[in-house]
Amino acid sequence: MSISPQQLIFQKREGRALSDQDIRTFLTAYLSGDVHDYQMSALLMSIVWRGLTEPELSTWTEVMIQSGHTLKINRDYVVDKHSTGGVGDKTSFIVAPIVAALGCYVPMISGRSLGHTGGTLDKLESIPGVKIPQTSQHITDLTEAHGLCFAGQTPNMCPLDRKLYALRDVTGTVESPDLISSSIMSKKISEGLRGLTLDIKCGNGAFMKTIDEAQALKKRMKAIAQAHNLDLNGVISDMNQPLGRYAGVRPEIYEVLQVFREEGPEDLVSLCLTLASQMLVVSGKYSELEKAKTDAKTVLENGKAYQKFCNIIKAQGGDISTLESPDFYLKSSETIPVSLKKSGYLTHIDTRALGSGLSKLGAGRTSTEASVDPQVGCLIHKRLGDPIEFGEPILTMYLGQKNDIGVVEQAADWFEVGSEPPDSQLLLQEVF
Amino acid sequence: MSISPQQLIFQKREGRALSDQDIRTFLTAYLSGDVHDYQMSALLMSIVWRGLTEPELSTWTEVMIQSGHTLKINRDYVVDKHSTGGVGDKTSFIVAPIVAALGCYVPMISGRSLGHTGGTLDKLESIPGVKIPQTSQHITDLTEAHGLCFAGQTPNMCPLDRKLYALRDVTGTVESPDLISSSIMSKKISEGLRGLTLDIKCGNGAFMKTIDEAQALKKRMKAIAQAHNLDLNGVISDMNQPLGRYAGVRPEIYEVLQVFREEGPEDLVSLCLTLASQMLVVSGKYSELEKAKTDAKTVLENGKAYQKFCNIIKAQGGDISTLESPDFYLKSSETIPVSLKKSGYLTHIDTRALGSGLSKLGAGRTSTEASVDPQVGCLIHKRLGDPIEFGEPILTMYLGQKNDIGVVEQAADWFEVGSEPPDSQLLLQEVF
Repeated sequence: MSISPQQLIFQKREGRALSDQDIRTFLTAYLSGDVHDYQMSALLMSIVWRGLTEPELSTWTEVMIQSGHTLKINRDYVVDKHSTGGVGDKTSFIVAPIVAALGCYVPMISGRSLGHTGGTLDKLESIPGVKIPQTSQHITDLTEAHGLCFAGQTPNMCPLDRKLYALRDVTGTVESPDLISSSIMSKKISEGLRGLTLDIKCGNGAFMKTIDEAQALKKRMKAIAQAHNLDLNGVISDMNQPLGRYAGVRPEIYEVLQVFREEGPEDLVSLCLTLASQMLVVSGKYSELEKAKTDAKTVLENGKAYQKFCNIIKAQGGDISTLESPDFYLKSSETIPVSLKKSGYLTHIDTRALGSGLSKLGAGRTSTEASVDPQVGCLIHKRLGDPIEFGEPILTMYLGQKNDIGVVEQAADWFEVGSEPPDSQLLLQEVF
Repeated sequence: MSISPQQLIFQKREGRALSDQDIRTFLTAYLSGDVHDYQMSALLMSIVWRGLTEPELSTWTEVMIQSGHTLKINRDYVVDKHSTGGVGDKTSFIVAPIVAALGCYVPMISGRSLGHTGGTLDKLESIPGVKIPQTSQHITDLTEAHGLCFAGQTPNMCPLDRKLYALRDVTGTVESPDLISSSIMSKKISEGLRGLTLDIKCGNGAFMKTIDEAQALKKRMKAIAQAHNLDLNGVISDMNQPLGRYAGVRPEIYEVLQVFREEGPEDLVSLCLTLASQMLVVSGKYSELEKAKTDAKTVLENGKAYQKFCNIIKAQGGDISTLESPDFYLKSSETIPVSLKKSGYLTHIDTRALGSGLSKLGAGRTSTEASVDPQVGCLIHKRLGDPIEFGEPILTMYLGQKNDIGVVEQAADWFEVGSEPPDSQLLLQEVF
């Protein structure tokens, strides 16, 4: 390295950009152990502080991709969707089957729940028998055969991202648009995609609280995608209330099955059709968004998408008879109604607190080692702006092994009621 | 700990103050190994970014002091001086003997050279035979017996500071007024002082480049001193040119001996008398600065200070016959004159580059493991504002083992000459 690790860290802390070569050398030395965790964590904090320029970001992402293998799915129209995470977000289980039913290939690589957000892999594993493919070859085979696959990051995909993420998790450096965007994009680019659709969540239940933050993330994602010849589109969607009516591991699978039965809530179905149509376009399979959306609606309604879902669940070892009995996914030890001692209009939901509360009850993880309790969750009866009567249930909580009475008692505080309805908020804040 | 290490780091990176208890728990856990280096370095970088409030700074310093032992010198008027470091700063060897000759006790604990600055311990060890006391008891005994002692930080003085400093050195977190002031003050307070005189260097050869930075450091030092009942005074002194005429390990001892022989340069002698008089007052021994200064001048001129110097050097094993032959300290393998191809007035000295250049030639350390070459150094013939003739020597370089021709060739670039003399700069920027 032309400069020492500490000189490189100092350069970033002073707000000066790092050269392409210095980033490559530093990251490679980190992976080999010549740069230490304590030096990397100091650099990560300087990046939280000073940010990365677009060229720095692109190089940083490239080194993460090159640290591992890239999927080689031998098909046209390989596409994926990524959500930055919120409460009640179960769109992956719906959009991947839709676009697979229309000739695209979706090697959907997802994560586990952490903090207040749910994780696709945990929800997937709550279907009895389902196994997560462990190798790139297995992911490729399943995707080529079925048009989709639900998987996690394998050990040889972006090992540098894995090492960095573990370090960020224990050093207060998770929240950073630069580090978040490079982490997401390195994994997605490693899937060998032609196109990617982003769902950037924005609001009190998301990592990006404001539209400015969401747009800043989008800008970075776009810069990285452009530098790597990946087509990108997507939405910024509202996360000031949970998506759909259900949150929690199995309760969300229950709602997915409702959507396949045309009984899904309007917000969830609408977002799924938008995202699916964007995926169809960004994959190169469709040229017109409206046509893509019409076809997406058709395969959702005629059962072809559901068939794709059943096929891949079965191929991954899942017991698909449970999918035919959705009530299986709504069992819980105890059901508790939560009501408010006020009447008026629902003006605010503390979505993050709701997600964290469910997480504490077992629906999510408070640390990476914890296990989740799939039956824990809730049904939210009201949406922002709905009228509420005094004493009317606003929430039904599904409890599991851990009956944390403190969380249940706090639940009413997650909601605010006013005498006037709030300004209505668009679900789709921006389509790009 | 009521919050996890990563939550505490996150709190600081978001700019929120840490509680007294959380700082104590985090630092104690770091010392015991329960908080890891990679977490501490992330916190240190957040502190570089966000700073510490005065209560945080005071607690941080207190935990560093409590991590080790405090000297117990059984005398009145225990006092020390600390300089933040510059080029050609050899005042310690002069002021400690002066105030010891007037009844004060000075357990002077110093450091080694690093980067572009010289270190008192390296200069001390260049006197044949001198040994550095290794225990608190030895430092205490020498100080009680002779009124002064030249020592380094022992293993059980502020071990937490030692551990933190080693980490800062390799993580780009050395430069931080909060971390610098807590590091200095924890060591000084551990000396069990009644009073401390600070020499905050300010200018292009110092860590603090501007008067604002120097005053910000002073403010922090004062807050820590006040919280620990330590009387504090001092100066902000100019470091836009080397102090005195000589720089380098033995060349500086040569100049110290010149001062004891009343042949010292005016700037050095003047600063020494100011600092010595401030030490006499802050120790409680004198109440009036003018009287203290008169007496300091007297013991410097009548040889009593020199006698104190010889006594402690002898007590620490040094061959004091060499002190009687100052030329011993000006031997070098080669002497090279440097002149400028311009005439006019000396308007600028790049003091940091001069210090770094000497360091590269062997006068200092470029890494903590390196050894120093005591004969390397220089004599600077001109001061800022002096008239210069074309071709007139501005510098005489004393070379040692390592003849780095590149450095010698650069030497003329350290100086700038203009047609007008620069605005004159006061040596004492501020007395507090």
